[in-house]
Amino acid sequence: MNWTREQLWERFQKYYFEFPTLGLSLDLSRVLFPDGYFATQEADWQRASAAMKALEAGAIANPDEKRMVGHYWLRDVALAPTPELRQLISETWDAMVDFTAKVHSGEIQGAAGKFTHLLVIGIGGSALGPQFVTQALGHAANDKLKVFFFDNTDPDGMDKVLSELSGQLGRTLAIVISKSGGTQETRNGMLEAAAAYKEEGLNFAAHAVAITGLDSKLDKFAASDGWLARFQMWDWVGGRTSETSAVGVLPGMLQGLNMDGMLRGARECDKLTRSIKIEENPAALLALSWYYIVNGRGEKDMVILPYKDRLVLFSKYLQQLIMESLGKELDLEGRKVNQGIAVYGNKGSTDQHAYVQQLRDGVNNFFATFIEVLKDRAGNSMEVEPDVTSGDYLNGFYQGTRQALFENGRQSLTISIRDVSAFSVGALIALYERAVGFYATLVGINAYHQPGVEAGKKAAGEVIAVQAKVLAWLRVQGGKGTTVAEIASGINAPEQAETVFKIVEHLSANLDRGIVKTPGSGPFSALYATR
Amino acid sequence: MNWTREQLWERFQKYYFEFPTLGLSLDLSRVLFPDGYFATQEADWQRASAAMKALEAGAIANPDEKRMVGHYWLRDVALAPTPELRQLISETWDAMVDFTAKVHSGEIQGAAGKFTHLLVIGIGGSALGPQFVTQALGHAANDKLKVFFFDNTDPDGMDKVLSELSGQLGRTLAIVISKSGGTQETRNGMLEAAAAYKEEGLNFAAHAVAITGLDSKLDKFAASDGWLARFQMWDWVGGRTSETSAVGVLPGMLQGLNMDGMLRGARECDKLTRSIKIEENPAALLALSWYYIVNGRGEKDMVILPYKDRLVLFSKYLQQLIMESLGKELDLEGRKVNQGIAVYGNKGSTDQHAYVQQLRDGVNNFFATFIEVLKDRAGNSMEVEPDVTSGDYLNGFYQGTRQALFENGRQSLTISIRDVSAFSVGALIALYERAVGFYATLVGINAYHQPGVEAGKKAAGEVIAVQAKVLAWLRVQGGKGTTVAEIASGINAPEQAETVFKIVEHLSANLDRGIVKTPGSGPFSALYATR
Repeated sequence: MNWTREQLWERFQKYYFEFPTLGLSLDLSRVLFPDGYFATQEADWQRASAAMKALEAGAIANPDEKRMVGHYWLRDVALAPTPELRQLISETWDAMVDFTAKVHSGEIQGAAGKFTHLLVIGIGGSALGPQFVTQALGHAANDKLKVFFFDNTDPDGMDKVLSELSGQLGRTLAIVISKSGGTQETRNGMLEAAAAYKEEGLNFAAHAVAITGLDSKLDKFAASDGWLARFQMWDWVGGRTSETSAVGVLPGMLQGLNMDGMLRGARECDKLTRSIKIEENPAALLALSWYYIVNGRGEKDMVILPYKDRLVLFSKYLQQLIMESLGKELDLEGRKVNQGIAVYGNKGSTDQHAYVQQLRDGVNNFFATFIEVLKDRAGNSMEVEPDVTSGDYLNGFYQGTRQALFENGRQSLTISIRDVSAFSVGALIALYERAVGFYATLVGINAYHQPGVEAGKKAAGEVIAVQAKVLAWLRVQGGKGTTVAEIASGINAPEQAETVFKIVEHLSANLDRGIVKTPGSGPFSALYATR
Repeated sequence: MNWTREQLWERFQKYYFEFPTLGLSLDLSRVLFPDGYFATQEADWQRASAAMKALEAGAIANPDEKRMVGHYWLRDVALAPTPELRQLISETWDAMVDFTAKVHSGEIQGAAGKFTHLLVIGIGGSALGPQFVTQALGHAANDKLKVFFFDNTDPDGMDKVLSELSGQLGRTLAIVISKSGGTQETRNGMLEAAAAYKEEGLNFAAHAVAITGLDSKLDKFAASDGWLARFQMWDWVGGRTSETSAVGVLPGMLQGLNMDGMLRGARECDKLTRSIKIEENPAALLALSWYYIVNGRGEKDMVILPYKDRLVLFSKYLQQLIMESLGKELDLEGRKVNQGIAVYGNKGSTDQHAYVQQLRDGVNNFFATFIEVLKDRAGNSMEVEPDVTSGDYLNGFYQGTRQALFENGRQSLTISIRDVSAFSVGALIALYERAVGFYATLVGINAYHQPGVEAGKKAAGEVIAVQAKVLAWLRVQGGKGTTVAEIASGINAPEQAETVFKIVEHLSANLDRGIVKTPGSGPFSALYATR
């Protein structure tokens, strides 16, 4: 149908929900569910609500891995199901407050003096939350420490970060984050960092702290190596919901951000999203809107468009939270469902000059989530035209794009927040955590495991194993050039020829192992040999 | 079908294409087209090839806007269709070389001395290319100037950048980039930047250069205001294909990057992708593979996964290039087709710890493009295990993920490059520009206009106009609180009530215009008034 402005205003008033305790509102007027939709979902919703209640009470909500799911307890310790857990959470918080105070006062310092830089070494859930929050809440003029990340096992990427830290390592505190303590990218990052400290004549252990599970490989190593401190992670906190654990809190505190405020925002949102009434529960409204739009089957992508530079990494954060939680092959009954919702986005109005052309005119395979921030900046704004500010334009572009998309039948929803603060960031994180949990129940999947990532890791391990054989075999040849097919036969793995090809192409592009390539007449007749 | 390793190795050898002059290879073995697919596409391909030839010869390839499409000429000046154009391109290049030399030598400097920082003010095509290349090729230890961006009209975002430049503006060169000279975000960025310079007692004009069309609003302003220099843009270079024009070249040169090398890489790729033989033309292979996978209708998203930190912004760059070029409502015959391919991604192996769970197990609505970089880093690598480096892991994770996806029926293609250099970055840019052009012909659309972005801009302009009326009306009320409905009636636009609501919510969250809100019993009974 073609909507008149009057009809849209009617619909807006019906589907605009304010949540004053969060300073947040939700506009679902541009989601095209029919009137009465929420009432038809009541039974499913009650199921989702009950499942969440059980989860918060300590049920095994991750049946595959037989784990509780307790990130909510981190924000409201009284809710944790046992006195031991409550004590653990409180002690860890107190330890972080204490450690941070000592770093800020200089009581704990680096070889070159007070810590001024922070190098966070982690990947996935151990990087995306801290990266998002650092960017959302940091400010060059106020930050106590300047934050850098190793979030990959790319040697050049690490060199690039180290060159920015050049001469500063004696004032750089390194935080190594791995829940399992065995994440290879993070282990490699730690080893490369330690080597860089050593190269500057510094003792890495005296500049390092670990965030990891008790008695993990990393935990034991940090203890025996004499690191500055260790902070605990628990198996009831998933990586993608770990921002309010030590994983997010310690880097934030050290940077000087108001982590207490962030947890307060999350706690207030948790409270509100325990409501059993759909219309009083923003996470229920979100999850049911997604369900309607994507038809419970991921039929549309979710495009996240915050109109605020500080929130530019929110889409990346949500990409993990949503896709890793919902992208599942099997449902809880073991049926093949291939669920998920694809998530991407950057920020407005920047993206209007990039891909909004396709959003309006192209394939209609998405819905937009606008995030509107009402407050423009800390101080007052100059006028860029009489009575018009840069912020008016930003808001105008948001409104204009929302309208232009809807005119062409593209659905959207808008989350409005007053400002980007520790509190509102905490609320946003908690809102999406909860909405994802609800949605998972609606479609009957386990949101808290990630069985699909093992296959890639296992295959990577096989590549490393084949490489060892290739290197050993090439070294035995004493410099004689051999083809990929010969190498594969030589290591008794002719079926691995493709892997061998990729391994020797990579090895011979680097000097480390002394493998050289002599090009042939075609890609598969090249010869590889030790130098 | 289930493929054995032997069958995959067969297929790999058949669909692995090396392009030695580019240092690039293309692996299409994990795209599931049947053998003989390319032969069946020959007629369509010849059409695409002929269209590109006409375009390069100066045909009006953008029929809507009656424009030539000439970004290829920038890399090979001899190809430009007229002596005037050839002269213009060469003169602009020479002017950039000359200006850069003077900046680097200090002959041209800021009020506080030699320029050390660069503030690029632009959005969309005037930011994404420079951001990608700065990140791909920059190095803290080598860069002549440190680069910052204003790429939005977010007031707080600009404040955040300015706080990083605090005390440095006297050594900061500002480049204002707008082809049309009228982009509002960029105009706002320029005005905010100028105000910041003024606040530090500096003359913005003495620190500013413009890149814009001749006689544009910006060009005239820069001339009359006495800026350091102006460099030309032309209507035959589209924003999303402007990286090899002054838009990308000047910031790169100033940063100290090898822009000549980048253009050389693009030129070599252009040469190669003029081949009329599919199998000798990597852009043809790419475009035809996309066509197969997305069924010529955008049925799958394109996930870009470079296994290299330096290439992390490539997906964002391609998001614009591909989605803005291909995301079209109408084909060249005026039929409604709603074309496009959605693009997203970040980098590997980082993303394996984020959304690869969904890619492997979830909704199968995408194909992956892996970018493999054979060279690990500038120097040698340490061992993280006996005989194993961080780079081996990176390569192993890429191989493992490619395999894990394919096992579950998820298609992928791999582009391998030797290293991330100016040359290879130029080649990658040119490769995708050309592939997009070919694909557009295959599906019969104009890749060079963006009619869908006007609607949002126009709607934004209306919001700004309504805001002026709202402000005027509120001021007349002399502090008396009024509801949204009353304001909308008062400005004789009751149909604009929703726009009014959003305007007053935004205004009252900021102090600038002195609008205050008194909450009511519900969201629509709040009162708004001047202070």
